Order: sequence, then structure tokens, then C-alpha cells
Amino acid sequence: MSFSAFSDLRAACQTLPLANATTKADAERRQAQLTKPPGSLGRLEELAVWLAAWQSRFIPKLDSVEILIFAGNHGVVRHGVSAFPAAVTAQMVANFEAGGAAINQLAKLAKAKLTVVPLALDNPTADFTVAPAMSEIEFCAAVTSGYEAVSPDADLICLGEMGIGNTTAASALCAGLFGGDGARWVGRGTGVDDDGLVRKRRALDAALATHAAHLGDPLRVAAALGGRELAALLGATLAARHHSIPVLIDGFVCTVAVAPLAKLAPDALAHCQAAHVSAESGHRMALQELNLSPLLSLNMRLGEGSGAAVAIGVLRAAVACHAGMATFAEAAVSQKQ
Amino acid sequence: MSFSAFSDLRAACQTLPLANATTKADAERRQAQLTKPPGSLGRLEELAVWLAAWQSRFIPKLDSVEILIFAGNHGVVRHGVSAFPAAVTAQMVANFEAGGAAINQLAKLAKAKLTVVPLALDNPTADFTVAPAMSEIEFCAAVTSGYEAVSPDADLICLGEMGIGNTTAASALCAGLFGGDGARWVGRGTGVDDDGLVRKRRALDAALATHAAHLGDPLRVAAALGGRELAALLGATLAARHHSIPVLIDGFVCTVAVAPLAKLAPDALAHCQAAHVSAESGHRMALQELNLSPLLSLNMRLGEGSGAAVAIGVLRAAVACHAGMATFAEAAVSQKQ
Repeated sequence: MSFSAFSDLRAACQTLPLANATTKADAERRQAQLTKPPGSLGRLEELAVWLAAWQSRFIPKLDSVEILIFAGNHGVVRHGVSAFPAAVTAQMVANFEAGGAAINQLAKLAKAKLTVVPLALDNPTADFTVAPAMSEIEFCAAVTSGYEAVSPDADLICLGEMGIGNTTAASALCAGLFGGDGARWVGRGTGVDDDGLVRKRRALDAALATHAAHLGDPLRVAAALGGRELAALLGATLAARHHSIPVLIDGFVCTVAVAPLAKLAPDALAHCQAAHVSAESGHRMALQELNLSPLLSLNMRLGEGSGAAVAIGVLRAAVACHAGMATFAEAAVSQKQ
Repeated sequence: MSFSAFSDLRAACQTLPLANATTKADAERRQAQLTKPPGSLGRLEELAVWLAAWQSRFIPKLDSVEILIFAGNHGVVRHGVSAFPAAVTAQMVANFEAGGAAINQLAKLAKAKLTVVPLALDNPTADFTVAPAMSEIEFCAAVTSGYEAVSPDADLICLGEMGIGNTTAASALCAGLFGGDGARWVGRGTGVDDDGLVRKRRALDAALATHAAHLGDPLRVAAALGGRELAALLGATLAARHHSIPVLIDGFVCTVAVAPLAKLAPDALAHCQAAHVSAESGHRMALQELNLSPLLSLNMRLGEGSGAAVAIGVLRAAVACHAGMATFAEAAVSQKQ
């Protein structure tokens, strides 16, 4: 599916498939028969049922797990909002391609296929303190790139990103979507010092003033304050929903990138789990705004899909128990008195 | 090592090896050179360094991972403290041996070797509301069983347990070691109803009254209020420390079982990580008492080492990044400005 205007995207959010209620009920019934006290596997039980319901498979599969990393550059870096130079975005894309980054090791461990999609790295978005980061056409093109990166037959999609400056964009997007200002939403990202933190807050507050007239429209906000990799994450999440593929969202930037979907359709993220809550200060608040409960809390703040990749192991654990455990009857174990 | 008296155990706690400070420093230096903002892998960085320091290996290994499950029966079940009949302990041991339990699936997924050690299941401990659960000799024999179950060349030991009634024993042990009564420490275990909860609290309070004279001595408390599987968990943790093997502790019962060691020597659990915080109400408090910070919080409350087995995946992620990532110099990525 290809998008060329906000209206295309709004229309695409009107036709969101639901989870398979019959498969969900079957999977829940199986969970109740397995040799454990009811509910004692906690979120592993919920995850097995969630995967079953979205895959329409009584016993879900995780054979084809795909990690998609989108990378973009940001005009706002001119304000000194990152601890790293903008050149690092392209350098890290090269590192992904050479296999040297954290996500390469984690993808291999999780038996997931890693795909990196650089988005016009030589052409950063506009400095959003003075102009929209992207035009409607640019934004929709990035959404389309994300949409088309999703394999329709994947069992699970994990989302990640790379972009020097993109926690500033994500913080601005939070403020635009949920209210509040730089003081509320800005954190240290890759590790800016106190002066850098002040510069991030100022840039965000300037952006909010510049785009004040459009803050009521989630897609306009995403185009004005986001970035190409964030737009692509939104597109990929929408594609996964259209194909009924469950999604693991990574950290702060990923979570915020898909938030406009939830503003367009209340249950638009029902096929998504938040893989983790990161150390970036705004992430926990953003998850609460979206009613997402993170699977992991390991103080990670790297991006690249690294938290999502670690959480694949939790999903595999959920599926292994669901698929392999004996029932009370099979094992001749007495049930609750 | 074999124990026949409390004094043997106290002596064994006087000779605890420390982590390798040189390897620790080397591993920390490597972490600082890897292509990520410093600290951005959060606990994955800490875990890699912790494994390196205890294994004395700059790049830690997880080739030989062993899950040990100890099983025991409890005289206190006569008070109706569990939702399941006591016969389930032996039935679940048979289920472990047949491969049908949650831990079998999780061990296989984590490439870990599972060993189940049933401890005199036909001979439950005494009802500790009226007498010590175990004599000094019985307790020390169970500790020895746990000690001897540890392979000296394992890379990682994961601890688990099975024992109908053992959350009542663990709650009693908490009260004995940390203070408080049944109202503070008792939770629903495998899922007792409100009446069962009242019976658990009453049994615990009766036990505290019966053993009031001995509550100042951690080993006496462990013998009087614990159980054979808890004693074995203590022995296994001590053995792992003597062999400098890192340990993943599972849930409430495991955490409480090893707590007497921390009372005997302040850093006795430095080689241990708490794999998760369970849904059992006393677990979070027990972890806080021991200054342990859980890796996972997935609302699990099954025991069997299930939380520890899921956390193996987190350790593998930590090691994969530590071992496989490129350094800034290798990848020609610019460092922090």
C-alpha cells in the first residue's frame, strides 16, 4: 500500500482487522489445562494467547521473526541536542551492515532476520524549530517505505530505529500529541550533559511555538515534529496490522512513532506489545498514555530495536510453554482442590 | 563438601571466594569501547561484567548451564495451606521427568540441562506449628544434597523448587529472618482462596510462637521453619560460591531459601542475581531485604525455576553483545562529542 496524503493514511486506519476471537478462546482453554496453577505463568500466558489470536494459530509460530531498523537524520541537530555527531547515523548503518552493532548480536541470538532501511540520510529533515520537519508528501513517502518493508508472511515484526537527534524529535512528538513541554518530555538520549539537556528543551519549546496551530492533528504533528524513521515505524506498524502480524515495539522513539495511530483509531496498537521500558525519562509516560505495559525493564536506552530483540526470548518462552506442556490429564497431575 | 552440624555450615561461610577484580576491570574496559553510548545497554552491561568477574573470563561462557530443581514435602499442609493436594509434589516430579512441565520447555529453549532432585518425598517435614520442621541433622543432610548437586565446572547454575506447601514455609522463614508476622508475609501461593489465606497466616503465626526462642539464629530458623528443598537450595548456592559459579535465583521460595546465607556473611549472595520478581506478595519485600534487584517482572508465580529459565535468555543477550560487538575503532564510528 502506498500513501501520498494524510487522508490516505486516515482511510487506512478505518479498516483494521481484529484479533481472531475463536483462536483466542481456544488458546485460553488450552492454557487452563496445562500442568500449572491457573495464571501462574503470568504474562507468558497472556503473550501466548495474544500471539495465537493475531496469528490465527492455536499454537503460534515464531519461525519467521523480522527486525526492521529504520534510520534517518534530523535538522534539529544543529541546535546541539545530541552527544554524538550526526555522521554517526550513517556510520552506525554501516556498522549494522558489517554485523558489529548490539542489534546484530541480539538478532542472531534470537534467530531473527535483521533488515536495515536508511531513509535519505544525506537529506536531513528540516529544523523543526522553524519549519515542519517534513512536508505531507515527504512524510507519506517515509510511511510508505515503512509499510513496504514488512513481509506479509512474517510471524512477528520487531521495530527499531537509528537517528542522531531522534529522541529530541520523539520528545517533541510526545508534547505535540499528549501535551506538556520540553521540561516534561526531554531526557538525555544517548547521554547529553546538562547544557545539552537545556538545548534540547529549548529546541522543543521553540518547535511547539512554531507549530502551535497544528497540534490537534496527529498526522500533521508527526510530519512537523517527527522524522523519516519515525514515519516509517508508523507505516510498518500499520502494515503489520493489515497483515495481522503481531509487533514488538522497542524503546522511546519507537513507542512515540506509532502513537499517532492510537490517536487515529483507539485500538490501533492492539497487535503491539511494548518490549521494554527504557531509561529515557519520557518513555514510561508515553507507554502510560498508550496503555502499554512493557515486558522488560532493564535500564536499556540504546534503540536499534535492542529491547525488542531481547524480548523475543520472552515470546519464545511463552510459545514453548504453550506448545510443549502436558495437560493435567496427560500427566496425571491432580488439579486444584 | 558434606555438612552434619550448623557449625560446619557457619565455617563454610567464612571462606567465600570473591569475584575476580582484574577480569571485572577488563570486562568494564571492553564495554566502554563497544559501539554504543556508554551505559546504554543498562543491565545487559552489568550482567556481562558480573558473569566475567565470577567466571574469571574476560568473555564469559554460557555453554554449560544447569537448572537444579529440588522437591520436598511439608507437614504443615495438614492445616490446609495449599490449593493443591500434597500428592502433586511427586506427580510434578514425574511430570518433570516425563518432560511435560513448564520448566522442561523453558530449559530446552534456553539450552540448559535440567536436573530434578526429589528429597524424601514420602517423609514430609514435621508440622512446624508444633515442632521444628527438621532436626539439625536432617537439615544438614538436605543442605549437603544441594551442595553435591552442583557440577563444579558449570558456567551458570539456575535454581528452582517444587513442594506443595512451600510458600507457607518460605513465608514463615521470612518472618523468622526479617521480622513481621503472617499478615505481612503470607500470599496466595499456587492460588489459595480467602479461607486458605487465613489458614496460612494462622499456621505461620503459630509457628513463630512455637519457635520464638530460636528466631535469632538464621540456620536454626531455616531448620525449624523451612523445608528440605529450601535447605538444598541453600547448599547449592553455597557450593556455587565455593566454585565461583554465578547463580540465577528463581522466585519467592528460592530467594527466601538462600537468605540465611546473607545473614551468615553479608556478601554471601554476591554471585547471585534474582531472575525475577514473582506475583507472590512477599517476594518483592524479601528481595529488598536482600538488596537484590530482579531482572524480570512478568507476574509469574509458578516456581520450578521457571523465572530463572526465562532470565537465561537475558544473560545470553548480555554475553552476545559483550562478545560480538565491534569497538568504536574497529567500526570507525565517531565517539561522544
